[in-house]
Amino acid sequence: MLTVIVRERPGPLRLLLAWKGSVVPHILPHILLTGMFAAAVTWVSRHHYLDGMVDYTLLPFTIMGIALSIFLSVRNTATYDRWWAARKHWGHMVYEFRSLARTGTIYLSPERRRELLTRCLAHAHLLRGQLRGEDVRSDLPGSLAPELIDQALSTRNPAAFMLHRAGDVLAEAHKAGDLDSVATAAVDQHLHGLAGIQAASERIALTPLPFAYTLLAHRTAYVFCYLLPFGLVGVAGWFTPVFTAIVAYTFFGLDRLSEQLEFPFGRHTNDLPLDAICRIHEISVAEALGDPAPEPLQPVKYQLQ
Amino acid sequence: MLTVIVRERPGPLRLLLAWKGSVVPHILPHILLTGMFAAAVTWVSRHHYLDGMVDYTLLPFTIMGIALSIFLSVRNTATYDRWWAARKHWGHMVYEFRSLARTGTIYLSPERRRELLTRCLAHAHLLRGQLRGEDVRSDLPGSLAPELIDQALSTRNPAAFMLHRAGDVLAEAHKAGDLDSVATAAVDQHLHGLAGIQAASERIALTPLPFAYTLLAHRTAYVFCYLLPFGLVGVAGWFTPVFTAIVAYTFFGLDRLSEQLEFPFGRHTNDLPLDAICRIHEISVAEALGDPAPEPLQPVKYQLQ
Amino acid sequence: MLTVIVRERPGPLRLLLAWKGSVVPHILPHILLTGMFAAAVTWVSRHHYLDGMVDYTLLPFTIMGIALSIFLSVRNTATYDRWWAARKHWGHMVYEFRSLARTGTIYLSPERRRELLTRCLAHAHLLRGQLRGEDVRSDLPGSLAPELIDQALSTRNPAAFMLHRAGDVLAEAHKAGDLDSVATAAVDQHLHGLAGIQAASERIALTPLPFAYTLLAHRTAYVFCYLLPFGLVGVAGWFTPVFTAIVAYTFFGLDRLSEQLEFPFGRHTNDLPLDAICRIHEISVAEALGDPAPEPLQPVKYQLQ
Amino acid sequence: MLTVIVRERPGPLRLLLAWKGSVVPHILPHILLTGMFAAAVTWVSRHHYLDGMVDYTLLPFTIMGIALSIFLSVRNTATYDRWWAARKHWGHMVYEFRSLARTGTIYLSPERRRELLTRCLAHAHLLRGQLRGEDVRSDLPGSLAPELIDQALSTRNPAAFMLHRAGDVLAEAHKAGDLDSVATAAVDQHLHGLAGIQAASERIALTPLPFAYTLLAHRTAYVFCYLLPFGLVGVAGWFTPVFTAIVAYTFFGLDRLSEQLEFPFGRHTNDLPLDAICRIHEISVAEALGDPAPEPLQPVKYQLQ
Amino acid sequence: MLTVIVRERPGPLRLLLAWKGSVVPHILPHILLTGMFAAAVTWVSRHHYLDGMVDYTLLPFTIMGIALSIFLSVRNTATYDRWWAARKHWGHMVYEFRSLARTGTIYLSPERRRELLTRCLAHAHLLRGQLRGEDVRSDLPGSLAPELIDQALSTRNPAAFMLHRAGDVLAEAHKAGDLDSVATAAVDQHLHGLAGIQAASERIALTPLPFAYTLLAHRTAYVFCYLLPFGLVGVAGWFTPVFTAIVAYTFFGLDRLSEQLEFPFGRHTNDLPLDAICRIHEISVAEALGDPAPEPLQPVKYQLQ
Repeated sequence: MLTVIVRERPGPLRLLLAWKGSVVPHILPHILLTGMFAAAVTWVSRHHYLDGMVDYTLLPFTIMGIALSIFLSVRNTATYDRWWAARKHWGHMVYEFRSLARTGTIYLSPERRRELLTRCLAHAHLLRGQLRGEDVRSDLPGSLAPELIDQALSTRNPAAFMLHRAGDVLAEAHKAGDLDSVATAAVDQHLHGLAGIQAASERIALTPLPFAYTLLAHRTAYVFCYLLPFGLVGVAGWFTPVFTAIVAYTFFGLDRLSEQLEFPFGRHTNDLPLDAICRIHEISVAEALGDPAPEPLQPVKYQLQ
Repeated sequence: MLTVIVRERPGPLRLLLAWKGSVVPHILPHILLTGMFAAAVTWVSRHHYLDGMVDYTLLPFTIMGIALSIFLSVRNTATYDRWWAARKHWGHMVYEFRSLARTGTIYLSPERRRELLTRCLAHAHLLRGQLRGEDVRSDLPGSLAPELIDQALSTRNPAAFMLHRAGDVLAEAHKAGDLDSVATAAVDQHLHGLAGIQAASERIALTPLPFAYTLLAHRTAYVFCYLLPFGLVGVAGWFTPVFTAIVAYTFFGLDRLSEQLEFPFGRHTNDLPLDAICRIHEISVAEALGDPAPEPLQPVKYQLQ
Repeated sequence: MLTVIVRERPGPLRLLLAWKGSVVPHILPHILLTGMFAAAVTWVSRHHYLDGMVDYTLLPFTIMGIALSIFLSVRNTATYDRWWAARKHWGHMVYEFRSLARTGTIYLSPERRRELLTRCLAHAHLLRGQLRGEDVRSDLPGSLAPELIDQALSTRNPAAFMLHRAGDVLAEAHKAGDLDSVATAAVDQHLHGLAGIQAASERIALTPLPFAYTLLAHRTAYVFCYLLPFGLVGVAGWFTPVFTAIVAYTFFGLDRLSEQLEFPFGRHTNDLPLDAICRIHEISVAEALGDPAPEPLQPVKYQLQ
Repeated sequence: MLTVIVRERPGPLRLLLAWKGSVVPHILPHILLTGMFAAAVTWVSRHHYLDGMVDYTLLPFTIMGIALSIFLSVRNTATYDRWWAARKHWGHMVYEFRSLARTGTIYLSPERRRELLTRCLAHAHLLRGQLRGEDVRSDLPGSLAPELIDQALSTRNPAAFMLHRAGDVLAEAHKAGDLDSVATAAVDQHLHGLAGIQAASERIALTPLPFAYTLLAHRTAYVFCYLLPFGLVGVAGWFTPVFTAIVAYTFFGLDRLSEQLEFPFGRHTNDLPLDAICRIHEISVAEALGDPAPEPLQPVKYQLQ
Repeated sequence: MLTVIVRERPGPLRLLLAWKGSVVPHILPHILLTGMFAAAVTWVSRHHYLDGMVDYTLLPFTIMGIALSIFLSVRNTATYDRWWAARKHWGHMVYEFRSLARTGTIYLSPERRRELLTRCLAHAHLLRGQLRGEDVRSDLPGSLAPELIDQALSTRNPAAFMLHRAGDVLAEAHKAGDLDSVATAAVDQHLHGLAGIQAASERIALTPLPFAYTLLAHRTAYVFCYLLPFGLVGVAGWFTPVFTAIVAYTFFGLDRLSEQLEFPFGRHTNDLPLDAICRIHEISVAEALGDPAPEPLQPVKYQLQ
């Protein structure tokens, strides 16, 4: 029985030290560099080499820091919305599959229903392959005609091709008079749903945020973190490198996290578990057809693939 | 008569002292620890052991504090949206049940309508069980065939299985010629609605926020609260521990609240009252079928289960 | 002719002094209490009784004040969304009524159309009664069979019952062969719309924001306003009580406004004009049936009921 | 050929000096008053009349200023959403008209199609008239029966009446057996769309933001701007009036802009160009019917009516 | 095979120095001017010419800076939403084309299906031309009747005209009895979808943000950046021009970025790749018809046209 296991929350210490899934590994070099730069500034300042040159206080940084925080948050909200929209569409797919199986039972003959579901399953795998740039031939349902697979893989958009072939099943049944127009439209509405999910996924995968967004956020964060030591050194002394590193962690971390969420279909730690979702489709289809269902994919280190 | 009782607002003093439903019990140890740490820093500082080592002011904390506030709010908005989306979907379910009862009256025979509604009710209970990891067999409608229940519980996704069986009622009626394609599609649209609610619930239950989000928020809040005493001690003296504890309450409280809202299907104080909603379905179905309706669940200490 | 009168904006002075519709009456005692407390702190401070005990500055309050502002705004956005969603649903109802009248003309006989519209009108009144906890029997359409009203009021959910009875009109027409499945589905879609509005209204009326939200906002605002005088007294002297009262007005006002918007179906000044909306339905139905239409409700002191 | 002309951006100097479309004309008296008050405070302060009475610093204003900024932005987002929602609905109307023309070609006879489109066009004009409180009789299509116009104008809601009459065209065709139920439902769906746009427009036009919102924003902005000179005068000297005026411009400007966006159907500079949109409908209908199409309305001084 | 290539992220140095796609080229003159003005202020201040005249501190700028940051972010969110909505609609178009091809296979004869798809393709090109103000005659499908093209280009709205002609294909098939009402409605629903995309695109292209928005943001940013040197010069000395330039970069950059996103259909660097999307339609249509498909457009310098 597939029970939804509510993920156990790691304890506070584990949270503080977690490495996997964190953005720290990606930005650590930058944080260290910033900290070392701040240490150098402090050393120079303590030896009075900057006297007469640098006498400004921390106040200007407050204005810039707040502007930067707000801007990074706006960008973060935009990328998080992409990630969550992608998640929603792929969750929606689960539901189109189940409704396809159900309406298939109502209106179609068992053979046609099996063929329709198999082609839709192949569509989902092919879409996953396209979004990740991976070869998914070995994951396609075994009962699919090999020449259909070859034909699909030779087109520009195999997933769209395969969905079109699922439509052919309806076209045949309709032309043979086994399916009236209403029933055809009722089943086709779920294929329309699948086509919508593909279009939404392609839109997210192919359209980055406006590049100027990324540039503006990135540059302001850099300039801020490399100027900060000059402002801090007067009041914070040798704590300057520590502070600078912490601020760099917050701003670079948010910057990098936004980047990871921008394209949610890859294989990074925070990307969507497309493999596991496709397995859920396989289970739905198998149970609907009365075939033996495969095991759901298990998370590896708290993480689904 | 089911009147919607507008919940009485507790008085200001009760609000200040409320314990149940508050996040305070969960974070009190952390708050106390932070306060004690701040007291130690103050004691050390008052005895001049930090002189020459610590001479920075509070200003850097303003920048960090604002960045942290903004970031915690962004995360909080994201988790609140999950909570409210979950609530919306389960409220939507009430309305699919009522419309199922109404369209059932229009198009179906009384026996088929009863069977359809009973299976949908079982679907709702099974979904609740899956989301909470609880055994709901005893809550399933008594009129349901026991072998159907056994069969459902032996599958990977009993709720999906049961909804499929509700579809079988339509398939039979359609194949028997009692239901034309239009009427079938009209009733099936509500089953499609129920499938959508299940998919949305599973999506929320199975997909945490990106883990890096939680890490970034958690770590920045910790570092901030443990550094704050060093900044405060110069200006706040023995009020340092009090201030530190208040700030820790705000930030840890928001952090913990976000976590509770992230997975809204559990049995915590702020989780959704799935039991009470399922009871509302039972009442809807019973009244629609002319059966005696059970009592609605009453809140226990201002709280529905 | 019902012209939409754009509400005249009161002049600046009237705006400053407006009492009705303001939250000031509700929070004035709290504001005064805070101000008096601040005055006491100032008096004590001016007599040097706090010397050596209190020497912290205003800076820590900046951090807390900003965090509190952001948090109150997030909560306010959430409650405003509930208020506006409730308004949208009840505005949507207007449109379902008009479309019911129009499709009724197309597909139904005049008697059935009248009965359908009358029952839907009763549904709207009953829903209003349930949401407000008021007795609406006298507002129900006179042409409705009294035993139907009695029956409705004896059920747990009279509004849902009445909508179901509206569906019975369609069921009869469909069974008598006067209405084909397509036409039935076309009219029923508007009943489905009304059911959706009821479910959404019940969801908003029955689900408060997570209680921990209210607690966190409330407590932080209180603690902030009672600590503020200690921070202000050093720099603001006898202006301390004035400032404290103004800040208390802003924060307590936002807190209270959020509470009022949280449950928008009551009879507070900022709640929704359900009576006036139901009157609009009555006018729509009367004009559609060719009956004399009642007058629209007029705002009393700029306010619709 | 109607090409969408991308509006040329005015140069930076023109932007700085633009008067039309700006909120400055509306708030200039207030700004000047605030500035003059600040000048008076400065003069008094420079002559030491306030010594011993006023000795507080600018810091408390930071807290209040930030709280006010956040709150004004929240309110602004809410009013902007209303404005944009209104724009969306009226843009949606364009598309319902085009689809009505297209489905009319498919299913209806030319005479019925012409009558249907003419009545829908009259509906749009009447709705515009109701929202703006203007007499639009002269804008109604000439081919409409005068007694129908008289009848419409004598009802409480002429736009709803006229849409109902558009539905009569379908009812006749359906009763005459010229239109099957499916085709009727397909065309009626666009009338349903128009009814939805009317309901949404009425909702926006009739429901102001909660009045307490406006009061809270307005009062806090006033109090802030009139207290600010006392805080500034110690550090800014004779620049106090300049600063106060600039801050007043920002806060009063945002306050007034929010008010203008709150009711977007009027004839203010930032209101929606309902006249131009109705002209677009006239062109769509004329081209669909093969009649000579009128010219689109041209913007006057960068502005459509 | 069309694999979705995940765009490689440029390295940190490239990001810092990127010119193309950045807003820097557009605002550099302004930034330099601000910096030079700040240098002049610093020079004058260092020679004590401002003594006695200017003695205010940086604190007032904090309030204004935060208000400005929040306001620019609110405006930026609004323009980003327009950009993303435009992107969504044009991505949606891909999916309407694929579903048109699929339902065409089910219900239409090959000739009618080819004509329908060709006219829809022409519609997409014509819409692109109208939105960009470009001549797209040479991009129209070669198999389209030239007189149809001439006729389209002579109307006020060629894209709407062409979509209407696509509807004619359905009207003919329906009148000839080859297509029942249900099938007609099923195919027409996708034409309705295309009409919706056109209406949404026109709405975005023709409706700027309220002009007062742009004015308020622009003016406040200008005033802020030209006053800032006076506040900075006391604490930052010769770093004043550097700081002023950085702040100007952030605020002017955000201001300009918002403007670019406001009208997303042009040919600026951050505008939408309409050409590439139309090519995707061409590929979809060609593959659906069994014709040789053209190559997808390749990005030039990381950028699709």
